Order: sequence, then structure tokens, then C-alpha cells
Amino acid sequence: MFDSFKEECAVFGIWNHPEASQMTYLGLYAMQHRGQESAGIVSLENGKHKHHKGLGLVGDVFSESVLSQIKGQAAIGHVRYSTTGQNLISNAQPLTAELYKGPVAIAHNGNIVNYEKLKKELSYTGAIFQATSDTEILLHLISKRNNENFIQALKESVLLLEGAFSFVLLSQKKMVALRDPHGFRPLSLGKKENTYVVASETCAFDLIGAEFIRDIDPGEIVWFDEEGMHSEIYAKKNKLSQCVFEHVYFARPDSKVFGKSVYESRKRLGMFLARESGVAADIIVPVPDSGVPAAIGYSQESKIPFELGIIRNHYVGRTFIQPSQSIRDFGVKIKLNPQSEVLQGKRVVVIDDSLVRGTTSKKIINLIRQAGAKEVHMRIASPPTVSPCYYGVDTPQKSQLIAANYDLKTINDFIGADSLAYLSMEGLFASMESDNQHFCAACFNEKYPTAIYQNH
Amino acid sequence: MFDSFKEECAVFGIWNHPEASQMTYLGLYAMQHRGQESAGIVSLENGKHKHHKGLGLVGDVFSESVLSQIKGQAAIGHVRYSTTGQNLISNAQPLTAELYKGPVAIAHNGNIVNYEKLKKELSYTGAIFQATSDTEILLHLISKRNNENFIQALKESVLLLEGAFSFVLLSQKKMVALRDPHGFRPLSLGKKENTYVVASETCAFDLIGAEFIRDIDPGEIVWFDEEGMHSEIYAKKNKLSQCVFEHVYFARPDSKVFGKSVYESRKRLGMFLARESGVAADIIVPVPDSGVPAAIGYSQESKIPFELGIIRNHYVGRTFIQPSQSIRDFGVKIKLNPQSEVLQGKRVVVIDDSLVRGTTSKKIINLIRQAGAKEVHMRIASPPTVSPCYYGVDTPQKSQLIAANYDLKTINDFIGADSLAYLSMEGLFASMESDNQHFCAACFNEKYPTAIYQNH
Amino acid sequence: MFDSFKEECAVFGIWNHPEASQMTYLGLYAMQHRGQESAGIVSLENGKHKHHKGLGLVGDVFSESVLSQIKGQAAIGHVRYSTTGQNLISNAQPLTAELYKGPVAIAHNGNIVNYEKLKKELSYTGAIFQATSDTEILLHLISKRNNENFIQALKESVLLLEGAFSFVLLSQKKMVALRDPHGFRPLSLGKKENTYVVASETCAFDLIGAEFIRDIDPGEIVWFDEEGMHSEIYAKKNKLSQCVFEHVYFARPDSKVFGKSVYESRKRLGMFLARESGVAADIIVPVPDSGVPAAIGYSQESKIPFELGIIRNHYVGRTFIQPSQSIRDFGVKIKLNPQSEVLQGKRVVVIDDSLVRGTTSKKIINLIRQAGAKEVHMRIASPPTVSPCYYGVDTPQKSQLIAANYDLKTINDFIGADSLAYLSMEGLFASMESDNQHFCAACFNEKYPTAIYQNH
Amino acid sequence: MFDSFKEECAVFGIWNHPEASQMTYLGLYAMQHRGQESAGIVSLENGKHKHHKGLGLVGDVFSESVLSQIKGQAAIGHVRYSTTGQNLISNAQPLTAELYKGPVAIAHNGNIVNYEKLKKELSYTGAIFQATSDTEILLHLISKRNNENFIQALKESVLLLEGAFSFVLLSQKKMVALRDPHGFRPLSLGKKENTYVVASETCAFDLIGAEFIRDIDPGEIVWFDEEGMHSEIYAKKNKLSQCVFEHVYFARPDSKVFGKSVYESRKRLGMFLARESGVAADIIVPVPDSGVPAAIGYSQESKIPFELGIIRNHYVGRTFIQPSQSIRDFGVKIKLNPQSEVLQGKRVVVIDDSLVRGTTSKKIINLIRQAGAKEVHMRIASPPTVSPCYYGVDTPQKSQLIAANYDLKTINDFIGADSLAYLSMEGLFASMESDNQHFCAACFNEKYPTAIYQNH
Repeated sequence: MFDSFKEECAVFGIWNHPEASQMTYLGLYAMQHRGQESAGIVSLENGKHKHHKGLGLVGDVFSESVLSQIKGQAAIGHVRYSTTGQNLISNAQPLTAELYKGPVAIAHNGNIVNYEKLKKELSYTGAIFQATSDTEILLHLISKRNNENFIQALKESVLLLEGAFSFVLLSQKKMVALRDPHGFRPLSLGKKENTYVVASETCAFDLIGAEFIRDIDPGEIVWFDEEGMHSEIYAKKNKLSQCVFEHVYFARPDSKVFGKSVYESRKRLGMFLARESGVAADIIVPVPDSGVPAAIGYSQESKIPFELGIIRNHYVGRTFIQPSQSIRDFGVKIKLNPQSEVLQGKRVVVIDDSLVRGTTSKKIINLIRQAGAKEVHMRIASPPTVSPCYYGVDTPQKSQLIAANYDLKTINDFIGADSLAYLSMEGLFASMESDNQHFCAACFNEKYPTAIYQNH
Repeated sequence: MFDSFKEECAVFGIWNHPEASQMTYLGLYAMQHRGQESAGIVSLENGKHKHHKGLGLVGDVFSESVLSQIKGQAAIGHVRYSTTGQNLISNAQPLTAELYKGPVAIAHNGNIVNYEKLKKELSYTGAIFQATSDTEILLHLISKRNNENFIQALKESVLLLEGAFSFVLLSQKKMVALRDPHGFRPLSLGKKENTYVVASETCAFDLIGAEFIRDIDPGEIVWFDEEGMHSEIYAKKNKLSQCVFEHVYFARPDSKVFGKSVYESRKRLGMFLARESGVAADIIVPVPDSGVPAAIGYSQESKIPFELGIIRNHYVGRTFIQPSQSIRDFGVKIKLNPQSEVLQGKRVVVIDDSLVRGTTSKKIINLIRQAGAKEVHMRIASPPTVSPCYYGVDTPQKSQLIAANYDLKTINDFIGADSLAYLSMEGLFASMESDNQHFCAACFNEKYPTAIYQNH
Repeated sequence: MFDSFKEECAVFGIWNHPEASQMTYLGLYAMQHRGQESAGIVSLENGKHKHHKGLGLVGDVFSESVLSQIKGQAAIGHVRYSTTGQNLISNAQPLTAELYKGPVAIAHNGNIVNYEKLKKELSYTGAIFQATSDTEILLHLISKRNNENFIQALKESVLLLEGAFSFVLLSQKKMVALRDPHGFRPLSLGKKENTYVVASETCAFDLIGAEFIRDIDPGEIVWFDEEGMHSEIYAKKNKLSQCVFEHVYFARPDSKVFGKSVYESRKRLGMFLARESGVAADIIVPVPDSGVPAAIGYSQESKIPFELGIIRNHYVGRTFIQPSQSIRDFGVKIKLNPQSEVLQGKRVVVIDDSLVRGTTSKKIINLIRQAGAKEVHMRIASPPTVSPCYYGVDTPQKSQLIAANYDLKTINDFIGADSLAYLSMEGLFASMESDNQHFCAACFNEKYPTAIYQNH
Repeated sequence: MFDSFKEECAVFGIWNHPEASQMTYLGLYAMQHRGQESAGIVSLENGKHKHHKGLGLVGDVFSESVLSQIKGQAAIGHVRYSTTGQNLISNAQPLTAELYKGPVAIAHNGNIVNYEKLKKELSYTGAIFQATSDTEILLHLISKRNNENFIQALKESVLLLEGAFSFVLLSQKKMVALRDPHGFRPLSLGKKENTYVVASETCAFDLIGAEFIRDIDPGEIVWFDEEGMHSEIYAKKNKLSQCVFEHVYFARPDSKVFGKSVYESRKRLGMFLARESGVAADIIVPVPDSGVPAAIGYSQESKIPFELGIIRNHYVGRTFIQPSQSIRDFGVKIKLNPQSEVLQGKRVVVIDDSLVRGTTSKKIINLIRQAGAKEVHMRIASPPTVSPCYYGVDTPQKSQLIAANYDLKTINDFIGADSLAYLSMEGLFASMESDNQHFCAACFNEKYPTAIYQNH
């Protein structure tokens, strides 16, 4: 039973580089935190696509010999979480298809909310579907517009979609990157000499030595061909709805997302939290790794020392053999170890990025108490999560979100802290150095920027 | 450089069995000789499909835990050779797709000769293609007929196809088996208590303990639903064009194909060969394993003793590490070892099923001579192969078929035999106990039963 | 529950070849039938050993990159069956150890019957044992003689061993091959230009293009160093006790074993069987593959036609998923399929090489009857197996050997044949073209050529 | 070219637990940082050993089914780095052997410096060696004392060893743990109800819910049998020589080593470093993860804010495909990413635990400058490393240790910092809260507590 939100994807694309696939591999490597279930790369060489996809981490899916067969001057790539049990490989991206005018490959971060409706319409007219993912719909919409040129067909198709989408596509001659008009998911543009790069997060640019240029704009389509880069606004910009949770948890702290340093945002979340919910304490302890920047901010603001009171074991793999004899709080202990030398006799403020079901927090607090802490104050560097996300994030159902069902005191009792405080919505938006007009915070405030369809 | 014809597939289907996938696994196992590149199974459980496909032998692709997840009362399966290098997995069958009315899975043995034309038409109207195989076309044709019921849509669709096809399909509620009106490829119907089975070869029935009922007729469609089995003739029977090479080489000797025992056919091929091209000799030696039944027939007819003068190593796997130092005739010796104790000083008649490029025969004859044979007479239990197959068989190009380019004497000189003889066309058809009206023998006589399109 | 005797090993060695490991790989490949559980190679390069061992078939254990790291001008190799469940890899051979004078590697075919006694003595003086195999004892015995030169130490050591052993060893400067004084197991010497080769079976020579020179003599030690080949008799020749079962079943038919063609021996077994136990019948049907040569011999002698009435599926792998629903005689059917077209209405003589537990024969006969045979006469091309082997063969316990516990009529009733006959001991020895002075036939006549110790 | 010291092993043992192997698996998991090349477990069940070893991480080597076969009430385990290229598996531990009195298994952390001499003596008297590791020597020494009881034989044997050794052994009836008289390597004792546990680090106790009791004393032997735990001093305690580098770098921060919290030690290293080598700066930035505790200490002491100016990618696996096109500082960037938002315009103090070759520091400093730092001051939380370790640590040769060959200014120029300072020896020992009488710091001061033999 997972106790956090899970980002579902990262996309990457590179144009005009002699080792396009190798660079894509590196870019995906840098964004591995956004998806660990499958990885894929499609390259373009003389109008032909080469591709490889597989289940697992980037480093497991691609070997040197596999990469050497995905040649070409351009490539796109994808990593993903998978939410469905069966047939994972058919949902791995980039999706590929042969259209009348040639091959098209597509990588998607986000979620199309009117997918079921569009699928029904398309399949009624004869379209057949391979994957259970929403992404495939775009291939069909483009294919229906065979008499248009590719960019035109793509623009018309995308206008039919509702929801969250940062797409990277590869056709027979072009690479395309575009973001939905709300700008839910990030997508950035980078450059390295004559090479263009697009990626979900800027940390991918850092690794390959590319320079961050700017974000792809919401409602903007950018494409690359032999003449270079082209850009166009294909849709009126909606009210911006950038996912605030990218800053709260998903993105790597060393990425710039929506133009801002994630690390600095998280530190501010911690600072505002300290101002709002200060408490007399001896040490500030983060739940590693995600709580670290907010804890640093909290510590700097409160002048209470920051300590690594909980140590994380980074060797924990995906599969772990559970002993049949019960070990208390085993699930947490395999990853996190509170150390008594630091915690013994202390009044401890524990900082976590968010609180979803509450089960993990309960175990952590229990372990901290066992380690001898005198007081344990839980501070969450974001508001209560009260509603699921429909825009490309894997969230538990509402009934599983503790804050959607219980009041603060009950939650505090459940997790067993001496006190519990969340960041306020105001604190959240202030930390973003932005008013709430620019962000989607539906998981916190239930204000969904689009219609939500029944099927979810 | 392969030196034989290669069958490209086997199909299997089972209806109304509590262990449908397990039985399909066994059926594919029995027909492994028809395709060793990939294997797949799709099951039907309460209107839902479960599937698994992979590259390799049946026993490698399916583990016990994988099989246990493909539950249901019905299942279809497929093994295949792959002729194209890249992206093998996307061509593995059964192909699956979600249509307006639900999931459809399809397994195909054969080849659709008007595939390129149909694909062009379909993609022009917006169809997108996943695989490079011809089979996918049928899914699109069915999908275009969403207003019809499934069987009606299927019948209409199939009538648009030209070429060779034995199909097994699984929809949300039915299993279907059908053969093209020419009857190129085999497809048999079996029964085991209340369970129906269809398979490319009857050896699949033997393993699971099912009884052979009859062949699916050319132009017949058979389907299975909760009411049982239904049958209909969807197309006027063409002149029958059953693939004679199934009896010459492809099928397992213990299968009944087109109603006849393959083993007995092969023995007759050898008997007629002995009558046509007898020669004074001491021993009859088959090229194992495919030449054994014909050699037995030749021996019985000629009264010359049958001897295993060449021993085959059955442990030879797919990948074999070639020494860099040349070993004479290595490619043949890794599999076949002529034994001097048997051959020394003898006049030897060597029997093979067919002769394609001639390179292997040349090596075998050379080895037999080294082993001390006094005379080596090559006898081929089929006529000269002079033309490629377009009906689901992987054959070399015409330029590579030695009999298409050289006369008998030149071939004999090339392979280095003391004499060489093929079976006559008359002998071939006589062995089938059938006139030539019932068989496609285009690889021997260039009489193609359908139009052949440019793209081949 | 296995129903045949199992050879436990093959050994191979090559001296003075630039691709010694590659050739060893090929040699093991040719002898894969003698052991399929593990494979290993040790090479000698400038006084250093390189080695690789693994569980599985030769082709699975060795990849091109692994082989390329086992360089040198000499190499020895081994394939083995494993009889113990646990820790298979530590028993894989060649065994290697570092001695005072350098590295020694050893490959063994056979079994040392006084192993437990020697082990006790050695361990009492401080020797430690890694593997559970008997082979390791020789390393210790050599190591105790550090003041002797290697060949001298080896000769002294080997004289302490009782039982069956064909050894190939590699020291820092030499390769050695030797056979026990009884000559239980085969070991042959070959040559290819300036390269020397030793192997358990001559089929290994055929594949690499080497010429069979002669057998290593019982009681002979042969070694190879920079001066070439040396030979010495290290022990008085005992009464020869060559394993007759090598000719009955173990060896490849295309090998020469103890100087005789195995194929021809097996044919003679069948011929004598026909003379001794002729029966009116329509066809002679071998249990493939092991029964084929004897069936050919029986057919030639009896003039009754030889027919492949049972077809073997060679794709059967090691692991096979059993359906939970019982399929009658499944265990046999997965490998063997009797064909009714051949058997229907016939009086059938079934030929098998030996009969161990009888359970497989029972199933085969049942299937042949189901296929419509009118009469089924079982003929076994060797005498009744009544006693286990202690000389390197994996045999069931005496209580499991049907002929050790029941009379002919009872066995016949059990397997369900119309008649059953074994070859006589006289027929067996006559087939070997040798008197019974030269062979060990203890599994047939309980005359063990050595003492047998309690521990077995 | 590695640029850090590498710990070579961890050992673990558990006595009297129904899931001994499972607990050992967990204990090794917790100590995975001490060795990632191989893992192994040996269990004791009714006087028999069961074992499994393999190359790779604990989670890869052991599956649920493998673990379930290593049953018993006691088990020992081992993880290791491997320094030699070939035949890794034969060096994997626990080593096992069959002795006169039964099976013995041994797991070793440390290095025996008189190994070559002992090996020569033993092999001269007939001992044969399987592995290239020093550990095997102990098995031989014990085996030579077959007339003693196991504990007595072990004590006598261990007294012959010089060097570093924390051993855990399993005999037919006992589990033993012992430390060399210098106490080079850690070894702690824990308890959980009636179960005893020993482990290299206490973090292993935390995971399985055991309580830390005390360290095994230098020169102490502890054994466990059916009567419980026994302890004895087998050797006069030498001057203590506990490895100070365990606190500097090797151990997990949440372990107690030599009785002290590693995290607190590292914080003190940073604090003393701040006192000794303070510098005007805006932020303190650790090289993650090893520099973090020292940086926290430095920050707390200097009152300069602690910032995660370098982000580490924890998904980096063992094998990584290097692009052929050079990416500047690629080797570092794949793991570490300095973030310009934090570093831009700042005077930065970078904290690392140690400085070995200097090549990594050079790259990190370069990246920090590129990220816009105004000044970069390198502070090393330990003294200059000037000499290799012979006590179980994998260190570069002296010629590769930059501080052994160059003065401070030259090193500073090489790494490109604005200033460079190491911690003093006094600071090091002060941080340990101990005088220098209790620690081996030979890598810093060349004072080796034992003789060092030529062969190194």
C-alpha cells in the first residue's frame, strides 16, 4: 500500500546530435525518479525509426549493444510508472505506429481526461487500440488527418484533448515538443551548440552539459527539422494550472521547474512552515530524502539545529524479501533508521513533504519515540491532501487520503505525534513566490481546472 | 545463410477447458518445429483477455507463474519464425487490440499477398499500424465493421484478403477458426469430451489427449460460443491449393495433414524416388532427421539396407560459438556426423527431403566421402525447388535456389555426388495419393494459385 | 523418477592449440549427452590457469566473451550429471586448486570406490574438502607429495585409488591423461597436426577435425609438455573391465568406444536379439532415439520392416510445466508420440536399449495399444539390469530395478506386453565381439571387478 | 580509477532463531555499503550446513526460494568487495569446507598480513587452496588440529595469524565470533529475546529489532552452543588499533562503532575542522552523502548556513554506459549535480570526508565554479591520506595518494580551490573523543601496528 503520490512519467527529446540515443539514455537516467517501471527510446535515422523499450530501470533496459542499434541524429525517450498490473510492456512508451505518411513515435507526461470519450468515438469509426494508456489516442487523431501536413494535423488533434500533456513526438522528419494550454506538467528547452534538447526537468540538461534556455510555453508547439527550430502558439493560453506538487515532491531539487529552483521552493516551504507552526524544540529532523530541503529551511528560519536523526539506506531495491516473522515497523525500517544517539532525550520536529495515508508517518514517529525522543512534533511542508489528481499522478482514492476524511486532531492521534501541523494554502502559494492563479493545487483544494469525467 | 525452407507459424485454439492456457502451452510445445522465434498465448476469462508473448521457445517464454496468470476457459496461441531483424517482439502473435465492441486477438499461419495494397488504403483513412506483419490488417478490417456482429464483420473482412491464411481468433465471447478458400495451410479440428480444439497439426491433439475430428474446410469458418460449435461456408471453395511442402518437409511425421499421415506420405516419396531413380548401392543413408521416412521408404522399395550413416547431435542450440580457426565443413559437422564404420567402402545412397541452395548437400557429400564411401548417390525426395513461396513460408530468393538457375548436371558437379536425382512432379503427386488439382506446388512448378504482387 | 541409467561425465583435453578453449568447448558440445548439469573449462597460459564453470548446457555456460578470457595453448574440460541436490556449482568440474608447486586442475569420469576411507584418512591429517565429489581426493594425494615431481606424485597417488577413473589433468606445465587399470571408462587419444587431444568419446574428435589415434590404455598415463607426448604404464593391467553399458546406451552411436563402433555394436545387439527371441510380427518399431540402431539390426536380421512408429519431439527441454489436470501417460507423451497410421492393426515388435524400472515401457506399450496395434512384443537389446553401478553411473537402487525383484512373467504383466524378451548375457558379449573377460557387466551379472564399500 | 578507500567486508551471525537465514539476509542488507561484489549465507540445521553465495547485491543474490532452502536455527553471512578480477565467485564468502570433525564455514572482515608465509608452509605440507583469499588459511590451521576440540583448535590457530580479523564461524554445533587482539575491525554483539546476533555494524541490529549489547572485545572469542553464550580472552590485548577510518568514512552514520555513534563522530570532525580552518563564507556545502554529517558539524560550529548545493542521483547503478562523445566532468556529473541557484555568487565551503587521488575533488570544484560560486574553499574532514592500508581496506598504491607525493599548495593548485585545509591529527583524535592510543591511523600517519610483509 503506497503512501505517497507518484509522478507517472518523464519525457526527453534531442535533435541534431551524433549520439542522440546515448544522450537520451543519459537524460532519462537523470530523470529516473519520475518513473521506474519502464523505459524506452526511439531514434530517427534517415527517415526510419529504431526503438527499444523494456520494463525496469533505464540502466537495466539499455545495454551498450542495444543502444548502439538505435542510431540516428534525433531521438525521444520516456520513463514511466505503471499503475495497471497486466501487460506493462505494451504500455511502455514511446508509443510507435506506422501512419499513412510514415512512422510516428510519441512520449507523454500527463493524463488526458476526456480519453474514454475520444476512444469510444474513434473505435466506433474503426480505430483499434493496442495499449490501455490514454496516449495512443493522439496517434489516431493525427492519423485521421492524413491530408494535412504533420504539424497541422498535430495541432488540430491536440485541440481535441482535455487534460494534462507534455508531449514529445518524432515523425519521419521532425521532432515536436508541446505543452497543454494549462501547463500542468513541466517541459523545458535546452541547447548545446547546435543541438536542441527538451526534457521534463532541467537536471537532464545538466548531466549532458546542455544549457537551459526556457520552458516550452503552455499552449506552445515547438518543432525541429532540417531548418532548425520553429515555434507557434497553437492554443489560447488558459489560466495557468502548473502542478504545485512538482515543487512539493516530484521534481529533483536540482531542477528548475516552471522557471524556479525546486530546492529553493522547498526551503521556503519549510521556512513558512516554521513561521506558521513554530514549536519549542531541540532539533529539526527531516524524513529523508524528500523532507531534507524543507527541514533546512525550517531550521534556518527557527534557528533550531538541523540533524540527520533518521538515516536512509539507499541500497533498498524494488523487490525485498519480507521475513515471515513479524518485525515491528519493518516496512519503514528497511529504508529509514532513526538513530538514538541523536534523538535521545530531545524535543524533535520531524519534517516531511506531505502526508497521504498517514501510515508511514505513524511508524516513523513510533520509531523516533523508541529511539528516546522526549517530544515528537510532526510538521508537513504542504497543506492536507484531500483529493485525487487526474493529471498524470498516481494518487490513492479519496477514501484513502487521511486528511480528506479526518480532522487534524484525529490525524494527530492516529500518527501519535505530540503535535501536528500542515502548511497553509497561503504558505504554499507564498513559497511558490506566486499567487494561486498560476498553479493547480487541486489535490489540496479540490479546484480542478478542467472538467473531470465519470470514468475516473 | 539458411539452406532450407522455413515454415513460419503454427496456430492453436481451445474452447471450454478449465486449463485452457496450459493446454495451449502444450499444443504449442508439440508444434514448436513450426516456429522457434516467438510464442504467445491469449486467454479469455469473463469477457476479458489475458496475454503473454515473448521471444524464444515455448518453454522459455512461459513459466509456471506466467501461465497461472493467463486464466480462462478458452485460449489461443501461436509460435512463429521471424524473418525481419528488428523489433521482433511487436510482431509476435497472437496480435491483440481493443475494438469498439471489445478485445480481439488473432493468430495467423500463412501470408496475405495483397497486404501492402490493403494497408495503404486503410492507413489513408486513418488506420495506424503497430507491427510490420500482414496479420494486423484483419484487425482493421473487422474494426471498420463495428455495426455488424463479430462473425459477420469477420466474414466480410476475410473476403477482402488474398493469399494464405489459417486464422484462429478470440473475441469477447467467441473463438473462431477459419481457412482461406484455397486451403493453403492446414488447420484441424479436435475434441476432448466437451472441449473443442483447433491446431495447425494433429500432433498437438495427441499430446493433450484430444481426438482428431476433421480438417477445417477451405472457405469454412467455425466458431465456438456458449451454445457450442457453429460452422458456415463463408466463401466458395476455390480450386484446392494445399501446400505440398507440408508433406515434404514442414509437418511433424506423426501429424495428419490434409487428412493424410505425413510419415506415410514421406515414405511414399522415398518409394517413388526409388522406383524412378534406382541405383546399385550397398546402403541407404538419410540426412537426419527430415530425410529418415523417405529413406525408409526408399530402402523398403529398393531392398537396400537402411543405415544411420549420419548421426545428428540434438543438443545443438540456436547460438553457437564459431571458432575463429577454420574447421572444414564446420557448419554441417556441428549438427551432423557421418560415421566411417558404416560408410567405409560402401556405395551410398543419401536421401534428403529437398535441395535448396545446395551448399549443405555439398558439405555432407564431402564428409561422406572423407568417411570412406566408395560412391555417393544423392536422391532428393521432392522435385527441384525453382521458385519462392509467397504463402507463409520463408524461402530464399529465386537467385539463391540452385535448381532455378542450373541444370541437373551442373548441380551434381557442384555438390560433388556420383549421381543426383530428384523426384518427378508425377512422383510427388502420386505420393500424395492425389492428383495435382489439390495441391499448391508453386515452389516446384511456379504455378501460383493467386496473383502475386510487386512488393514481394 | 528417472527410468534409465545416466552416465555421469565426459572429459576432454587439448595440448598445443592456439584456440585450446574454443576446441574444448566444441569437444564438450559433442559429448553433451554424457552430462547436462554442469560444464567447465580450465586453460593454461604461461603457467597460469584460467577457468570458468557453470550449471547448465555447454552452450548456456559459455558465451563468446567468457571463452575469450580463457586463453592459452592447452585446456581441459568436463560435463557432468549431478546426482546431489544442493550446491551443484561446487561439484562442477574441472576442480582446481593451488598446490605448493602451482595450480592443478582435474576432470574425472568415473567413481572412486574407496573414497570415503581415503577422505577420512586425509581429513584426519588436516586436509579440508570443498566439494562432495570423490574427485577432490586426488588433489590432496598429489599435494601430499610435494617433494616429488608432478608426474611421479600423480602416479603414486593414483595407485591408492580403487574404482573407475579416466582423468585429465592440467598442471602448471603439463597436461595429463590416464585410465584406471581396469579400464572402466573410455578415454581416447587424437591428433590434429601438432595438436594432441584426449576425449571420452571419439565423436569429439570428429567435430574438431582431429584424427583418432588409439585409446589410452588401462593403467597407462600419458602426458604432454613442451617436448611433446610421453607415455608410461603406471600400473599392472588388471583384468579388463570395460563398461559394457557404454555400448548398450551411454555413448553416441557415431563414437568408437573401446576400439569399436557403437552403432555397429548396437546393431549386433539387435541382430542377436532377433535370433534369440524372434516373433511373428509386421513391423519393428524402436523407442527413439536410443533404440534405433538395435531396431535396425533386428529388422535386418528378421526381415521384418523397420518403421518409425513412435516419433520423438526433440524440443523437449529440461523444465516442463505439467498441467494440473491429469493427462494420461503425460510424462511419456511429451517426448514420444506413437502414430496410429503406422501401428493400426499391426503386430508390433518394440525395441528398447534397456529396461530399468519398467514404468516408461508400461506407458509406451499402453500408448501403442491405444494407437491400434494388434500385438505388442517388447524386446530389450540387453540383459535384465539387476544391480546398481558403482563406477560412475547414476543408477536407481536395487529395490527400484524391476528385474532385480521380479521374474520375467511378472515384468511382462506389469508392462502389459504380449511378450517380453531380453537379450541373453551370451548375446550381449557376442555383440561386443569379445569374450566376457574384457567387460564389466556388473549391472547385469553382479560380478563387481573391485571391492564395494559400505558407504554406497 | 576509483578515488576513495573501499571497505572490503561485513560479517553477520545469528544463533537460535527460527528464521536465521532471513535475519542474516536482512542484516547483510543493512550492511550492503560495506561490500557490493558478492554476498553469501551459510545456515546450520541439525548439524548440516546449507549455503548459497553469489556475485552482486544481497537483493540480487538471494530470492525467496533460495532463502527458503537455507534453513536452520543459526546462520552466518558475508558481503564483500572484490579486488581481484578473475574467479570472483570462488572468493565469495562465507568460505566452507568439510573437515575431519565436520563442516566449517567462515566469514572474515579484515586482512591477514602474514598470509603468504603461512600459505607457503601449509601447502608445503600438502594443503591445497581453492580461493586466492587470505581467509582460507584459517580453515587449514583448524584442520591441522583435529585432535583438539573445535574452540581449542580455533584459538590455537588464530594465535598464528597477524593482522586484522573479525571472524564469524559456523561449525557443526557452534557459532563463533572473534576479533584480533588489535581490534582493527568492528564486531558487535546484539540480542533479541533468546537470540544472539553478531555484526560488523550495529545498523544490522536496528533493522531486525535486536538490541546492541556490547562490542566483542579485541582478543576475545565468543561462542554459542546449545547451552547459550560463552566468552573467553584468547590473547593478551595488544595496544588497541581500531580503524579510525571506520568513523571517517566506512561505517553507516547510524551505526555505533567501537562504542561511539558514527554520526556524532563525523559531526565532531566537522566542528574541529571549522575551528582549525575557519574561513569567511556564505554557505557550507557537503559532498553528498559522505560529507553531510561533517558539513552539519562545520555549519553548526561556524554558524554559516548548511546548504545542499550538490544533489546526488541515487539511481546510479554499477554499470553505466559512457557516451563516446566526451562530456566534461562526466564521471562526477552522473552522480553529483551542483546547483547554480544555490551556489551563484556565493563564497562556498565544500566539505568532503577525505581526499585520496584528488581527481574527483578537482572535478567537483570545477563544476561548482561553473555553477557561479565566487569562492570555493575545500575542507577535508580528516588528515592527508599518505599511506596504504593493509588491514582489509582497498586503497590505491602510495604513488596514487596525492598527499603522499605533493605538498598542500600543489594539491590546492591541482584541485583548483581558493583554499584547501585538512583536519589535523590532533583534531582527528579529539573528534574520536579518545587519545591516539586506541586507534590505527596508519593511512594518515604511517604508524603500522603490525609488521608489514613484502608481498603487499
